Amino acid sequence: MSKYHPLTEKEAIQIARTIPDFFAAEGELASREIGDGNLNLVFHVSQPSSGRSLIVKQALPYAKVVGESWPLTLDRARIESEALLIQDRLAHGLVPKIYHTDNELALTIMEDLSSHVIMRQGLMEGGVYPKFADDISDFLAKTLFFTSDLGMNQQEKKLLVRSFANPELCKITEDLIFDHPYTNADTNSFDPHLQEDVDQLWSDTALHLEVAILREKFLTHAQALLHGDLHTGSIFITPESTKVIDPEFAYFGPMGFDIGAVLANLLLHFAAQEHWSADEATRQTRRQYLIQTIRDIWESFERKFRTLWNEQGVDRVANAPGYQEDYVQRLLRDTIGFTGAKMVRRIVGLAHVADIDRIPDPAVRAKAQRIVLAIGTKLIKSNRNATSIEQLIDIAEAASTL
Amino acid sequence: MSKYHPLTEKEAIQIARTIPDFFAAEGELASREIGDGNLNLVFHVSQPSSGRSLIVKQALPYAKVVGESWPLTLDRARIESEALLIQDRLAHGLVPKIYHTDNELALTIMEDLSSHVIMRQGLMEGGVYPKFADDISDFLAKTLFFTSDLGMNQQEKKLLVRSFANPELCKITEDLIFDHPYTNADTNSFDPHLQEDVDQLWSDTALHLEVAILREKFLTHAQALLHGDLHTGSIFITPESTKVIDPEFAYFGPMGFDIGAVLANLLLHFAAQEHWSADEATRQTRRQYLIQTIRDIWESFERKFRTLWNEQGVDRVANAPGYQEDYVQRLLRDTIGFTGAKMVRRIVGLAHVADIDRIPDPAVRAKAQRIVLAIGTKLIKSNRNATSIEQLIDIAEAASTL
Repeated sequence: MSKYHPLTEKEAIQIARTIPDFFAAEGELASREIGDGNLNLVFHVSQPSSGRSLIVKQALPYAKVVGESWPLTLDRARIESEALLIQDRLAHGLVPKIYHTDNELALTIMEDLSSHVIMRQGLMEGGVYPKFADDISDFLAKTLFFTSDLGMNQQEKKLLVRSFANPELCKITEDLIFDHPYTNADTNSFDPHLQEDVDQLWSDTALHLEVAILREKFLTHAQALLHGDLHTGSIFITPESTKVIDPEFAYFGPMGFDIGAVLANLLLHFAAQEHWSADEATRQTRRQYLIQTIRDIWESFERKFRTLWNEQGVDRVANAPGYQEDYVQRLLRDTIGFTGAKMVRRIVGLAHVADIDRIPDPAVRAKAQRIVLAIGTKLIKSNRNATSIEQLIDIAEAASTL
Repeated sequence: MSKYHPLTEKEAIQIARTIPDFFAAEGELASREIGDGNLNLVFHVSQPSSGRSLIVKQALPYAKVVGESWPLTLDRARIESEALLIQDRLAHGLVPKIYHTDNELALTIMEDLSSHVIMRQGLMEGGVYPKFADDISDFLAKTLFFTSDLGMNQQEKKLLVRSFANPELCKITEDLIFDHPYTNADTNSFDPHLQEDVDQLWSDTALHLEVAILREKFLTHAQALLHGDLHTGSIFITPESTKVIDPEFAYFGPMGFDIGAVLANLLLHFAAQEHWSADEATRQTRRQYLIQTIRDIWESFERKFRTLWNEQGVDRVANAPGYQEDYVQRLLRDTIGFTGAKMVRRIVGLAHVADIDRIPDPAVRAKAQRIVLAIGTKLIKSNRNATSIEQLIDIAEAASTL
């Protein structure tokens, strides 16, 4: 079984058997393909007799999106497994355990997280995750700091940058986040009732300038190893545990892109509360919970990042008075800008989110969509002058009563 | 002759013979090693009977600097030859012709430029180069634009970034330009009469903040493929011709680093006019010539860069109104900052320039050194607020009468 081919359920079991000290020697294994089949095969391999289980994830050489099939590099499986190993080392316990990787077969064998739910789903079901802000700020501060020139040897970093070039998956981001939503592109997809809002988006040149600058940062600022796709669909969660998954978009880019992805997806859910909360009181509580989570994430991230800088910085020059202050302010600005960009694309671009699209009532959905566009465009336009996370919060709260 | 070993003069001739259609079939070849032996072997191989000649340049696996021997990657020969081929394609005629490369032997066989002089030497001898501003602005505009996300496919650029990771040679820049001159580092070297000025440099925290920000740009902004060491010692020149050589420091960094290197070296020469010009009248003319060259370089660069953007840009998003203006202003600011950083290091750091060090009179030399430090530190401190190249020129002219 050396050359690449998509695995059968039987082959998934054979490979899973080879993991040392995992399954009991006696006892049958069962395999079930649980992926959506668009990008990857995902086998859940379990041993009923021992109660042990794991996941065999294999990349497919194409992506099925809106019916079309795009060829897609299998190298993303290598990138994903290498990113997971780095994240596990830097933010231990916040990603699934990795048992085995095989670049030729484009597969990773990892911890079964069936005890967790996908955070997007959990939020739509009203879930509350009191550990999340602390966990995700930990993940962000540690993975970003220790893969940047502040926290790792600058020459070793250059070799990592080389290893995570990832042009094909970056292309998806560059097109679908920073280009297509702002022009009449074929890939765009939006509800017809939004045509006027979308026309406004396409003709707003002040917005386009800011998007061009954000796109430039994504293209050129190799600040740290990003997860690259850190939305609430890439997070497995319980009230006690957070596990970040699927870093196949990993590459060296601006830190604010990852932080912004988290905040954007909380704000997408925030904007949809007229549907997801049963009544006005629940809605108020829910919005406050989401806003407080956003505040906690930024404040904890900033505190942890500064502590790492002060205690574990590797760069003499970074001790220059005022530099940390300047750096963190630029991080905040980038975060706010990328938060906005990550919101707008979910309404107008190719890939949407269930928080919005699963609102059945078109009027309620339209309202949520307009709240997202209002917050997103305001964040993009204001990012370069921001000085506090409260400015993002004020913009979100003002738009929630649109 | 497959595995790496330093070539003998005889072997250099053997390899030179293999270049098709270069030397006449009849007629002996002569070889002369003309390198300084610190980093590379440089063989001048000629055929007296035909009058043909070429250069065989081979990298040595170490660098001899101040008596010490540092191991240094042979991969720099691959980087140098690949950079030369790219520069030749993008700015044809402004780099030596390449006849042959061999990565295993770490060698490049190229055009003999004996008809040219090294520009630093030429300037010290009072040379005037009326084509230089036009040529070097051409080189800069074309090589920087067409290797950036503005002028080349963004995915192909990522593969080029990977190919030019160049950690070892970047380390030299990171240490010797952006770190050591601002602290009491062992590698520093400066005239004892400068101790007070150097103490001031080491305690100037406002300066250190700006240096930290410039260093961050060098470390993280993969804007375009830089030459990486574009001083007047890397330029062969005649009044009619300009050839940029030695791009072994090539890597993807901020465009302003290359532009700043050129301006810095003109200003280093500018600061030394009390010695290099025979009388006050010559001195005035010479300073005006150098200042006008600097102005011409920036203005021509800006004009050519904008024309390339308008006529050959590949990025739809880059057409956003105001973006080009914002981008060019940031380029100017980076250029001014890096110009300053490239000046200061030549007075305090490890590697100096002959324009300054060959001034025999200590008082005259000290004055030139203080002019360099005054211009350099002012440029570094003012870079983030600059809006015109005239600000750099004003700073230089004010300091020249110190």
